[in-house]
Amino acid sequence: MLPISFLSDFGLVDEFVGVVHGVIARIAPEARVIDVGHDFPRGDVQSSALALMRAIQYLPEGVALAVVDPGVGTERRAIAARTPWGFFVGPDNGLLAPAVAIVGGADLIVSIEDPRYRLPAEGETFHGRDVFGPAAAVLASGEASIEDLGPTVDPGSVTPLMIPLVEPDGMGGMLGEVLWIDHFGNAQTNVSPADLASLGLSSGDEVAMVIAGIERRISWTGAYGDVEPGEGLLHVDSYGQIAVAVRDGRADEAYPLTVRTAITFRQPGSSSIPVTPFTLDGL
Amino acid sequence: MLPISFLSDFGLVDEFVGVVHGVIARIAPEARVIDVGHDFPRGDVQSSALALMRAIQYLPEGVALAVVDPGVGTERRAIAARTPWGFFVGPDNGLLAPAVAIVGGADLIVSIEDPRYRLPAEGETFHGRDVFGPAAAVLASGEASIEDLGPTVDPGSVTPLMIPLVEPDGMGGMLGEVLWIDHFGNAQTNVSPADLASLGLSSGDEVAMVIAGIERRISWTGAYGDVEPGEGLLHVDSYGQIAVAVRDGRADEAYPLTVRTAITFRQPGSSSIPVTPFTLDGL
Amino acid sequence: MLPISFLSDFGLVDEFVGVVHGVIARIAPEARVIDVGHDFPRGDVQSSALALMRAIQYLPEGVALAVVDPGVGTERRAIAARTPWGFFVGPDNGLLAPAVAIVGGADLIVSIEDPRYRLPAEGETFHGRDVFGPAAAVLASGEASIEDLGPTVDPGSVTPLMIPLVEPDGMGGMLGEVLWIDHFGNAQTNVSPADLASLGLSSGDEVAMVIAGIERRISWTGAYGDVEPGEGLLHVDSYGQIAVAVRDGRADEAYPLTVRTAITFRQPGSSSIPVTPFTLDGL
Repeated sequence: MLPISFLSDFGLVDEFVGVVHGVIARIAPEARVIDVGHDFPRGDVQSSALALMRAIQYLPEGVALAVVDPGVGTERRAIAARTPWGFFVGPDNGLLAPAVAIVGGADLIVSIEDPRYRLPAEGETFHGRDVFGPAAAVLASGEASIEDLGPTVDPGSVTPLMIPLVEPDGMGGMLGEVLWIDHFGNAQTNVSPADLASLGLSSGDEVAMVIAGIERRISWTGAYGDVEPGEGLLHVDSYGQIAVAVRDGRADEAYPLTVRTAITFRQPGSSSIPVTPFTLDGL
Repeated sequence: MLPISFLSDFGLVDEFVGVVHGVIARIAPEARVIDVGHDFPRGDVQSSALALMRAIQYLPEGVALAVVDPGVGTERRAIAARTPWGFFVGPDNGLLAPAVAIVGGADLIVSIEDPRYRLPAEGETFHGRDVFGPAAAVLASGEASIEDLGPTVDPGSVTPLMIPLVEPDGMGGMLGEVLWIDHFGNAQTNVSPADLASLGLSSGDEVAMVIAGIERRISWTGAYGDVEPGEGLLHVDSYGQIAVAVRDGRADEAYPLTVRTAITFRQPGSSSIPVTPFTLDGL
Repeated sequence: MLPISFLSDFGLVDEFVGVVHGVIARIAPEARVIDVGHDFPRGDVQSSALALMRAIQYLPEGVALAVVDPGVGTERRAIAARTPWGFFVGPDNGLLAPAVAIVGGADLIVSIEDPRYRLPAEGETFHGRDVFGPAAAVLASGEASIEDLGPTVDPGSVTPLMIPLVEPDGMGGMLGEVLWIDHFGNAQTNVSPADLASLGLSSGDEVAMVIAGIERRISWTGAYGDVEPGEGLLHVDSYGQIAVAVRDGRADEAYPLTVRTAITFRQPGSSSIPVTPFTLDGL
């Protein structure tokens, strides 16, 4: 019996999350279900995909069930992928792609279609309850193999996720963007310590940070305790990315910053952001 | 050991939900507990009762523990009911009635009174922690039978739930109301596809929808993808009821709509809403 | 395998809580994890410590994992304590102190330092994920003893929690403060029924309550049902403390009240609030 890790944008004000837990418990009563989070922004595939990617290495190998699905009611497929970590189940909209890539890529992807593993709905299909939840549960229990769920899909036909790339701004700086604002108001960027190092910067330095055309000085520190309360700082966050924080405060409110805010680091400089695809074939 | 499905309006900002889980774990360490939801509107028995009714067929047979209890501190009873699905535990205020009815009705209802299955409180009783949680746990573990919990109650004395009925508006239309706004802003109504069919309408048709005296045209569609982003639509939701939605938007904000908003469907027409009781004897 | 009860201020909008669950599940797949609550105010050690203290007697004996840590990134230690209830794991900032005291005090406290029981982080340590979660999991599974986690710590060096004390106001009244506002808007105070009894007051009496210099009459009642809807009341809450509530309303909005609001009860009177330490040595 494999554990199931479950992520969605269903929120916690309805019975939606509970009903999916119920469906899993009816099919696989012994399966442990871990809630990775259910309050990701509605329909925000990129934010949710990145959260799943950050989380995946800490989740017990088994089944990852992810449902953030702005395209429900259109023609997008329901897919399941087999990877070295275990199985991934969710919509074919890029949501699974970064996490699948980071665990080594998928060697088999199927389109979930077999009616034996779907629940009938009285009206419109609630995909989390009727399609994805049952598929995750039968994979967890071993009641079905991934091949049983439906026909194999060409990996090249699966929707990748477009992740914004960091890029030199042509004026000696590095242009990135905010990927996520956490519960504490910290802003994770797509900029790595290596990107800053390529500008000749290192931990302990003052950095020029440009947001909305405003340049500020900020310390790249090893710990919150290195700056005064209320002061901003850059640090390498617990996932290894450069993050903007405020000691005893909220960086999102102080600067302000939100998901997708452009942010340039330099000794000076600036430019625009290209994208590169994440695919299910691995990094 | 039966699984326990737990619904309340306790919210998630306190330790209340965790404490009830703790009480259950002390009595029935092996019992699986599924959180159906805890952020239902404070004291809103109707909304919570309908959520439990929608969820119940997807929850594993066992014990349903539901606590939404605006009458705590008054004379209302604590009850447990035995049904073909399993046991229901909660306040005698109509909260359990629709779910009990939909699974076939109760053949035995007791008033939870035996002090052996209650926790002592230092001050006022916290019924979820001291009465309902322990009762659910001993039913789940088999430590007590339902008859052990207290005296049998006359089903006729149990509080029903008044559910608003759909009614012809006397002008060729059908008058209903909004039962629930979900996390995505979709509005579930008490109107069924059969009610619309009785007006000569069918899926694919344009429908006249009257809210607060304003009549609009809206499409009854099979899927969100049938309308443009930002456009409203009627569809049969995943529980088989007519719901109002907006593709890539929120119907509650667009119209606006809230729980109990009156809504009339027609080719034209209008009137007022009677109620009918749901009882524990079955539909 | 011991159950783990987990409290934090991580909130539910990120993957943080899920990741800690994942880390525990990888180390101790059979351990039951109870979420005591994760939406306590950010960095509010006192509110979280009191919630853990209120909850602890209802949680199954095992491991209590608590992470509310405004000092992360400074020099505060990570500690584990052994008590008659079981193990406590968290930061050395007073968070654990009241709960440890109420279960009888700690007979051994260690500083969690052994790298064998920590996860490596790519950047800054996420203490919940990399230090506290793994420590709780190895204590739950028995993979490590508490002595394995790190060196013993002098109990006298452990940070106590300063809890506001009730004090006579020198004018015949009793000065206390609000400790917690619950989900329903009820205000728990640090005043006990014995404090009111010392003023010659008893249940059923009218009490003079002074908030922000405004004196009001309020009934000390046995139940919400004793006052009219919308009316305020004092009662002994389910933890045995005096609480301010409004029948079918919110006391926090009606008066208004918030955590740390000073509140005086009397027949008349007033003064200022001293603090007394809670320590890990027991009450």
